[in-house]
Amino acid sequence: MQNDTFLRAAMREATPYTPIWVMRQAGRYLPEYNETRRKAGSFLALAKTPELACEVTLQPLRRFALDAAIIFSDILTVPDAMGLGLHFVEGEGPKFANPLRAERDIMALEAPDLEKLRYVFDAISLTRKELKGRVPLIGFSGSPFTLACYMVEGGGSDDFRLLKTMLYSRPDLMHRILATNARAVIEYLNAQIAAGAQAVMIFDTWGGVLADAAFHEFSLAYSKQVLAGITRTSEGRVVPRILFTKGGGAWLEAMAQSGADTLGIDWQTNLGDARRRVGSSVGLQGNLDPMALFAPPEAIEREVERVLRSFGAAPGHVFNLGHGVSQYTPPEHVAALVEAVHSRSLGAHAA
Amino acid sequence: MQNDTFLRAAMREATPYTPIWVMRQAGRYLPEYNETRRKAGSFLALAKTPELACEVTLQPLRRFALDAAIIFSDILTVPDAMGLGLHFVEGEGPKFANPLRAERDIMALEAPDLEKLRYVFDAISLTRKELKGRVPLIGFSGSPFTLACYMVEGGGSDDFRLLKTMLYSRPDLMHRILATNARAVIEYLNAQIAAGAQAVMIFDTWGGVLADAAFHEFSLAYSKQVLAGITRTSEGRVVPRILFTKGGGAWLEAMAQSGADTLGIDWQTNLGDARRRVGSSVGLQGNLDPMALFAPPEAIEREVERVLRSFGAAPGHVFNLGHGVSQYTPPEHVAALVEAVHSRSLGAHAA
Repeated sequence: MQNDTFLRAAMREATPYTPIWVMRQAGRYLPEYNETRRKAGSFLALAKTPELACEVTLQPLRRFALDAAIIFSDILTVPDAMGLGLHFVEGEGPKFANPLRAERDIMALEAPDLEKLRYVFDAISLTRKELKGRVPLIGFSGSPFTLACYMVEGGGSDDFRLLKTMLYSRPDLMHRILATNARAVIEYLNAQIAAGAQAVMIFDTWGGVLADAAFHEFSLAYSKQVLAGITRTSEGRVVPRILFTKGGGAWLEAMAQSGADTLGIDWQTNLGDARRRVGSSVGLQGNLDPMALFAPPEAIEREVERVLRSFGAAPGHVFNLGHGVSQYTPPEHVAALVEAVHSRSLGAHAA
Repeated sequence: MQNDTFLRAAMREATPYTPIWVMRQAGRYLPEYNETRRKAGSFLALAKTPELACEVTLQPLRRFALDAAIIFSDILTVPDAMGLGLHFVEGEGPKFANPLRAERDIMALEAPDLEKLRYVFDAISLTRKELKGRVPLIGFSGSPFTLACYMVEGGGSDDFRLLKTMLYSRPDLMHRILATNARAVIEYLNAQIAAGAQAVMIFDTWGGVLADAAFHEFSLAYSKQVLAGITRTSEGRVVPRILFTKGGGAWLEAMAQSGADTLGIDWQTNLGDARRRVGSSVGLQGNLDPMALFAPPEAIEREVERVLRSFGAAPGHVFNLGHGVSQYTPPEHVAALVEAVHSRSLGAHAA
């Protein structure tokens, strides 16, 4: 591999500079993405056509010196393959035609036939081939809990009322869904690794909406099951496992004991404090405020310096935003970000 | 006063049981509120008519043995009085007709003439009279930062892009707005105290969207100015000052040094950890997940026990939800909540 800085930093090994990739780096802020999406006809058609998914995965790497690619896909592919009927409503985000609420449906829920997710594995194989070893390719899934949020609510939510009503009233049903999701996510991520993913990330997008005790019981416990079930090495190399709970800054100590190699850190968390709290047990990935990219390049550089200084010179920092890049971001500001991270961190993480 | 348990707990004095009030206790989950609002014609007409604001403030106290009343009003009354033109769009929340974005408008911004907020002070005086010393009355305001969020965005936001673009690009303009807001909020809260408010709460609803360094610079610094400027005693008694930053669990140590007597705690934070982190410097108010009220009464009691046990037996706990009560909450579940807090805490906080 020509550039393995991301894989090394994610395992807390020394690197000559701080590697960077950007959550949602293949996305709507890029005109070429919008053009490919238009050709595909819809977001889901784009995600389900390996050649197009490969194409948009590679697009940001043609513009920016990013240190990793992440396969273009959706966090909800698994419940879609379970038969819940994923579709997207313009301006409203993902919806499920058959949300999971009735006890009978919950008891009948099963991990999906992986053949239904073949398009993801094919996209990964193809992208690996096209990448030609330039940078590593990251695979991913929603966490068991985050999948359950969408499965029960039938889409996004401001308050997760249906989900939480079940969680507080019928915790047995919630646990049943989560156990099935955990099995499904393990099989799904292992198939991604078999297809060529060189690192995997679990997006626990909604774990942060839970009360403290509920987070441990309903989110982290099942992310741990997944982390324990993931293939450890592939192609003779360790596969780093990244866990990101948005709004999860309160639980970093527990997450550091989850089996993850690196934790995603949102922008509200002080990265230096996070570093001290988790010690040398895990690497950290983050955590610039995505909205800082709306400032001029000089201000972006200042905020990049702040994040780099906050983490310090120890190994184990993967630079990223604290959340996905906004669709309104000027691409040239992402260029300024990548350039600033590389130039200002040079040498800081040498062994 | 017949029941001063709230005032005492908010000053970390011993109480025979844990007092409780509920954020948004006067609101849409109560049929009698909806009827009064219908009569008023609109939310703003309700808030701006002292007799009606008094009436809805008292409604929840007729149903539940709450230990405090909070004046019915809106957090955005101050920018409305500054001339920004507050109105409400059905299903979209508050909007400002004249959002604050141009440098010229920002430089011309001034603290409002308090006469324009007379309706709030009149509602407080009237409510104090009607309460007849049964329980104390809480006054409140949005924090300088939270007011600025709405003033710049012109309404709510998912990402606060306009606000953060200004914050990262032109911090000088943001500081100018915040300094003006802080002066206005001090005058506003002091006038509420003069009118009869016996405690005051600062709602920093959006402080939690800020990056760590930005929270300290743009939110907490100005809440501190307000806390330092609030009248300390009224009617021969200390006026407790409560600061609540939603999503602010990471910053409790700093908030404990802000001059607040009690900190509001959201439901994601472990109350026992919060207690240990702030020591005996401040009281804590919270923190049941509002969605727990959709479970049956037995489950509500279990969750109440969890919160009470998490805080422990020391003085200084005001029970509340971790956020406002949902409009879909069954009122009888709020009754179960209040009953459970009172019966299960009895004696726990005796000196």
